[in-house]
Amino acid sequence: MNVRAQPSSQDNARVHALATELFDALRAASSDGVGITRPSYSALESTALDIIDAKARTVGLRTERDAAANLIATLEGSEPDLPYLACGSHLDSVPQGGNYDGAAGVVAGLIVLAGFKESGFRPRRTIKLFGLRGEESARFAKAYIGSSALFGLLTAADLATKDSDGKLTLGECMGAVGADVGRIEKGERLLDPKSIAAWLELHIEQGPVLTARDLPLGIVTGIRGNIRHRVVECVGEAGHSGAVPRWLRHDAVFATSELISHLDHHWRTLLERGRDLVITAGIVGTDPSEHAIARIPGRLRFSLEFRSQSKETLEAFYDLFLSECQLVGEQRGVEFKLDRRLETAPAIMDAAWIDRLRAAARALDLPDEPMPSGAGHDAAVFANQGIPSAMIFVRNQNGSHNPDEAMEIDDFVSGVEVMAAALQEAAG
Amino acid sequence: MNVRAQPSSQDNARVHALATELFDALRAASSDGVGITRPSYSALESTALDIIDAKARTVGLRTERDAAANLIATLEGSEPDLPYLACGSHLDSVPQGGNYDGAAGVVAGLIVLAGFKESGFRPRRTIKLFGLRGEESARFAKAYIGSSALFGLLTAADLATKDSDGKLTLGECMGAVGADVGRIEKGERLLDPKSIAAWLELHIEQGPVLTARDLPLGIVTGIRGNIRHRVVECVGEAGHSGAVPRWLRHDAVFATSELISHLDHHWRTLLERGRDLVITAGIVGTDPSEHAIARIPGRLRFSLEFRSQSKETLEAFYDLFLSECQLVGEQRGVEFKLDRRLETAPAIMDAAWIDRLRAAARALDLPDEPMPSGAGHDAAVFANQGIPSAMIFVRNQNGSHNPDEAMEIDDFVSGVEVMAAALQEAAG
Repeated sequence: MNVRAQPSSQDNARVHALATELFDALRAASSDGVGITRPSYSALESTALDIIDAKARTVGLRTERDAAANLIATLEGSEPDLPYLACGSHLDSVPQGGNYDGAAGVVAGLIVLAGFKESGFRPRRTIKLFGLRGEESARFAKAYIGSSALFGLLTAADLATKDSDGKLTLGECMGAVGADVGRIEKGERLLDPKSIAAWLELHIEQGPVLTARDLPLGIVTGIRGNIRHRVVECVGEAGHSGAVPRWLRHDAVFATSELISHLDHHWRTLLERGRDLVITAGIVGTDPSEHAIARIPGRLRFSLEFRSQSKETLEAFYDLFLSECQLVGEQRGVEFKLDRRLETAPAIMDAAWIDRLRAAARALDLPDEPMPSGAGHDAAVFANQGIPSAMIFVRNQNGSHNPDEAMEIDDFVSGVEVMAAALQEAAG
Repeated sequence: MNVRAQPSSQDNARVHALATELFDALRAASSDGVGITRPSYSALESTALDIIDAKARTVGLRTERDAAANLIATLEGSEPDLPYLACGSHLDSVPQGGNYDGAAGVVAGLIVLAGFKESGFRPRRTIKLFGLRGEESARFAKAYIGSSALFGLLTAADLATKDSDGKLTLGECMGAVGADVGRIEKGERLLDPKSIAAWLELHIEQGPVLTARDLPLGIVTGIRGNIRHRVVECVGEAGHSGAVPRWLRHDAVFATSELISHLDHHWRTLLERGRDLVITAGIVGTDPSEHAIARIPGRLRFSLEFRSQSKETLEAFYDLFLSECQLVGEQRGVEFKLDRRLETAPAIMDAAWIDRLRAAARALDLPDEPMPSGAGHDAAVFANQGIPSAMIFVRNQNGSHNPDEAMEIDDFVSGVEVMAAALQEAAG
């Protein structure tokens, strides 16, 4: 009974041109001179939503902002009471990041829906494209804020978190871009998970695996979760660098170096035993208002992040971390003070959707490589709400979260083809 | 033939009152709300010189600024052609430091000369008090700038060094406070070492030894030298923290932690074998314009300082450091880039002056404890010019280079008494 879209509905030249147009517009609006900067819940992020919004209306989609200020563009199905298909990704970026991390998934969804519209394909199920905000943790330490808000998962403590400049709270910034902070603060569900039949997210691969294996795309099997501390502060005792003998020193830099070296050692051991784990201390610094070359550093602040596909490994390693803080602290007469622990659960992708995406890829003569996602994604939030979720990874050079991130538009087109085929079948 | 000063010339009440007056004036002029800040070659440093200058003139001393913009206050001797006795210390401070580090020695010299003047003691040798600038390395990484300038020891590279804000060069800042940068730049000697019979410097002890041993003062036997790098940059590769597996990571923070842990290990080994050594990485930081919790840190900058009383130990450890940079760099695929190496030679104090100070202390019923100086001092520069040099350490609580530095005025008075007795004998 379905009106199948013609193959030409997603034809390469159209996809290529529309992708280039949209990525160029996003880049022009958010270039910082080095890379791309679209901070979570900032005016630059809003501009990115506006660009997608305007294009969605141009191609005939209905658009709106939800109560968490995310963008939604809707292609109405012939049976609108059925649970709908949701696709999309996020539009924010890290500071001096790349243009494709997040945006690729939103642009892909828009191109697919535009193709359906243009070709006259009317799906049975409604399909909604989400242009989410606040996926990156760079500004508020917490990741997946936009999707978490949809399911009532933000706490008062989350909303009270100050941004990385220490000036504005998350709640203030969400309010400023139009979110209904009152409803979010109450933990109200803005979206009923039962109303969503599936979540499909295309995203650039943020690691080197597809490039190393010469594959244009991959189908994601699961997503790493994480435990984070935005600020761990090592508190020792400042003093003149020449005048305090070693046994009387409480040096925050040497203590933290030892802590990190111990964690590094344990990390290697766990990897050798087959556990999945990554550790990162991305932000490290002594205090510019008091540090000096000839002064024993009395304080050092650093961020810590543990990632794993296994919740058990995460928790076990976190306990080990606490134990090392205690051990190094006692040995060196310093204290490691931890701020609020933030966490995101690992997630597994839906088996039926993995099969559907792999079959669609094969039908298009594309590789159907299954792979885990080392990085976190909004898809994990949807999956952990019980919504069947799936992801397509597109090859990307030079990693992400840096200005050199570089996706080939041809690879992106392959991802869009797989996405369109799978959505068309599921919405059918 | 000498007119001996009466014991009352340095009587406790007068010394106490004058010390309190001068320290209070200095504190009031340079308090930053947390501690004391008198940056090298800044207006705040100049204000400190002005306070001492005004008081020196009030008590009848002749004052001038030398070609390096240091303050000199002179008590003319009856045989002014003899090499003169020099005393004093520095008036700058680290950011958020204490009020006594440096200033105590200048205040002590002024009180001694004022006492001589007041009591009618006319020395045979002229005595000059130096209020030196730029002893602290906090602003320009280099220490002892004021005394080094006197002996033509500043290079063009030193003068071109930018301050810690990266804005002004040392040469510009020296020029701004009145130094003759043209002469300094040529390496001209502004002072002939042969014209100086001795250098005597009173200074707070910057470590915990006198406090731990319950001694009000100590007589310094030698001064540690140092080798410094203001900035070592570890250059790895930035990337998404979740998406790059361990074997492909080039993490600047983990690499630097390993480097510092290795140096720490070797340091402990050398101490166990009886070598004198201190290592400090006082300034550490990732780049706020690009770092993020979820980003592998591609760069980390840190300062490094090695101190020892032995030049051989310094050089041997420095070679070990270069070797570790190479080793860790190769293992982790990072590079450690070193800026210009800065160094100060260790120095030994003059044996005859050590005896004179110890005898003076005993004659005053004070302890005559000999002790090495862990920290560097201008006295090392004078000593390495072949000028017989000596130092008196005064007990000080809570170390220095921090706002909690705290010298008891009674201990200071004891130091002034020893200084006055020794100068009176030597100038006699």
